[in-house]
Amino acid sequence: MHTTVGIIGGGPAGLLLARLLHNAGIDSVVLESRDRAYVEQRQRAGILEQGTVDILRAAGAGARMDTEGMPHDGIELRFDGRAHRLDFPALTGGRSVMVYAQTEVVKDLIALQLADGGTLLFDAEVTAVEGADTERPTVRYRHDGQDKTLTCDYVVGCDGFHGVARNAVPESVRTTYERTYPYSWLGILADARPVYDELIYAHHERGFALASMRSPTVSRLYLQVPNGTDPADWSDERIWDELDARFATDADPGWKLERGTVTSKSVLPMRSHVTEPMRYGRVFLAGDAAHIVPPTGAKGLNLAAADVVRLAEAFTRLHTTGGTDLLDAYSDAALRRVWRAEHFSYFMTTTLHSEPEQSPFQTRLQISQLDRIASSEHAAAELAENYAGLPFTG
Amino acid sequence: MHTTVGIIGGGPAGLLLARLLHNAGIDSVVLESRDRAYVEQRQRAGILEQGTVDILRAAGAGARMDTEGMPHDGIELRFDGRAHRLDFPALTGGRSVMVYAQTEVVKDLIALQLADGGTLLFDAEVTAVEGADTERPTVRYRHDGQDKTLTCDYVVGCDGFHGVARNAVPESVRTTYERTYPYSWLGILADARPVYDELIYAHHERGFALASMRSPTVSRLYLQVPNGTDPADWSDERIWDELDARFATDADPGWKLERGTVTSKSVLPMRSHVTEPMRYGRVFLAGDAAHIVPPTGAKGLNLAAADVVRLAEAFTRLHTTGGTDLLDAYSDAALRRVWRAEHFSYFMTTTLHSEPEQSPFQTRLQISQLDRIASSEHAAAELAENYAGLPFTG
Repeated sequence: MHTTVGIIGGGPAGLLLARLLHNAGIDSVVLESRDRAYVEQRQRAGILEQGTVDILRAAGAGARMDTEGMPHDGIELRFDGRAHRLDFPALTGGRSVMVYAQTEVVKDLIALQLADGGTLLFDAEVTAVEGADTERPTVRYRHDGQDKTLTCDYVVGCDGFHGVARNAVPESVRTTYERTYPYSWLGILADARPVYDELIYAHHERGFALASMRSPTVSRLYLQVPNGTDPADWSDERIWDELDARFATDADPGWKLERGTVTSKSVLPMRSHVTEPMRYGRVFLAGDAAHIVPPTGAKGLNLAAADVVRLAEAFTRLHTTGGTDLLDAYSDAALRRVWRAEHFSYFMTTTLHSEPEQSPFQTRLQISQLDRIASSEHAAAELAENYAGLPFTG
Repeated sequence: MHTTVGIIGGGPAGLLLARLLHNAGIDSVVLESRDRAYVEQRQRAGILEQGTVDILRAAGAGARMDTEGMPHDGIELRFDGRAHRLDFPALTGGRSVMVYAQTEVVKDLIALQLADGGTLLFDAEVTAVEGADTERPTVRYRHDGQDKTLTCDYVVGCDGFHGVARNAVPESVRTTYERTYPYSWLGILADARPVYDELIYAHHERGFALASMRSPTVSRLYLQVPNGTDPADWSDERIWDELDARFATDADPGWKLERGTVTSKSVLPMRSHVTEPMRYGRVFLAGDAAHIVPPTGAKGLNLAAADVVRLAEAFTRLHTTGGTDLLDAYSDAALRRVWRAEHFSYFMTTTLHSEPEQSPFQTRLQISQLDRIASSEHAAAELAENYAGLPFTG
């Protein structure tokens, strides 16, 4: 089989890229190692930046999002016993975010891809990417119990942190930047009505907590916990009690979440990672294949979307004019935005979490930073611009 | 001897407070442990915030500053081979800073204090502050070879980090917040014309560097060096070469400082420290007696000025109305501003210096932060507002 753009990975990055290429008249093949049911159910991020919302609409993939998604015009910060709301449109000149789960984005994009007859293979496990520095890179994969070959003009690795595409960049030219964090998130899904209209980010001496939602009847809640925490050590009651303790304010010390059946409970480690460059020969990396952020800034999915929008523009330029200038510029241009998001995610994470053995001095600095965000228009706007999202390209 | 406000320490904080109290018709006595020549020569900070400039003028102590000081409307950042200027008045609605050495401020304030007949004793070493929680706190000191006693209505400790006033706050109610940094500054004074119009803050893989000035013919220059560095290990030539290497940019790789005779060379450790509360009974703490910042944000002297302006307003309120409300509010109100400056100083320090064994990930985050300051109006304004200085009171 041959295609113009071979896409490894059928997550949101690969599927959105396939959709954008299809709309531009460029053929592609998507190879996804898992089955469709798995891909459509795995829980990931839930906050879409303004730019991601805009591109999904422009790509014709926004219909269900606009019906079922929940537009949010801000977030609430709780710290030092206080609560402070950030109004994103007022701070950013009209930008805001959409709460719509990544898994729903994936379902919508799969349905479109299959409806248009685009090639999307599930259970297609890529084993190697060869010839990145040739005119005809080749993807080897297993499908239907057979070893197969996909030859491509270009390959894009959208296969995540544990994918194989990154290995197409030789170690001699690859640089890895990494940081792990001394804490994790205990995340739950609960059949409970969110009693808050917008996400709540809480800095608390007992640790960070985040109140999010998946729908008007499903809450998504997170607690900072030590690395190595076993979710089984956290009973539902202990989780709810701890959440209430961390969200309490001086003005409303009895503030409580509405409780419901906990349907999922898992521990998520926190990591920052960047691989440079994001292109080698005719192989490009996008999304988690090239970079990971801790989830505190809600950047992971959106960063992947920005990467593939940039790639789609570059392939469209090639398709229409034969010019490779945007492809050649891809890695440097994408990385500048990646590092901005890496910094913002690090900033949100280290401002809101408490390290084990954190000094009281460091805690006071965190509170001073949060107090500044609550009192300075520039500090608030700096957070809001990064959260609602910087321009995807340019 | 008795006075209304006994002031321990004849540095800029104590002297400015005495001046402000004198102007309000409140008598005070200043006790300084060193002799006049020493106090008028010790090298300290050199950047006055807009608020400090304003209060020196309002206090009648601005005449020489306005003749000999050098108004600066911005600073330059150098990082990643680039140079970027921040325009303070444009970013802050008209605020800027003044380069005028602390030692000159001290000379001006001493001259005024003595001309007005205000009591200012040199070589008066305070040994104890007693009765902080009584109506009549007492300062014991040695002067002219004799043990003496100053009884006061109130005592203000402006005697710096190593002073005794802080001990008047019992350990049982005192909390200390502290951080030391894994690097120091090697600072020089040189009889060399500064070839730059504004301060240059350089982030460099070899370490931070800062180009400042004391006058149109005297340069003040700093290099980040490891803790424990012996200034004798740095020849003048090595210092100049290292400065040139750290200030070089891609656009002007041969950029060089004008060299001249090095007249002073010393190593300065970096420390953050806050003591809470800043008041116990009738004893108040101001300036370095209560808080220390690393010098990267140029906040130390200005924070001391803000403290004593707040205290002068509080004593004036008491003097005119008998009300103690501002005195009672002093510690909490001053500390909010102190923590803002602590955070800003920490931010400037950790954004611009390289830690020993710093990870490449952390270096990229620093460069992303600096790149953001160079490209976002909000990020630039947040730095400029903090640097030019937040309102002193309120």
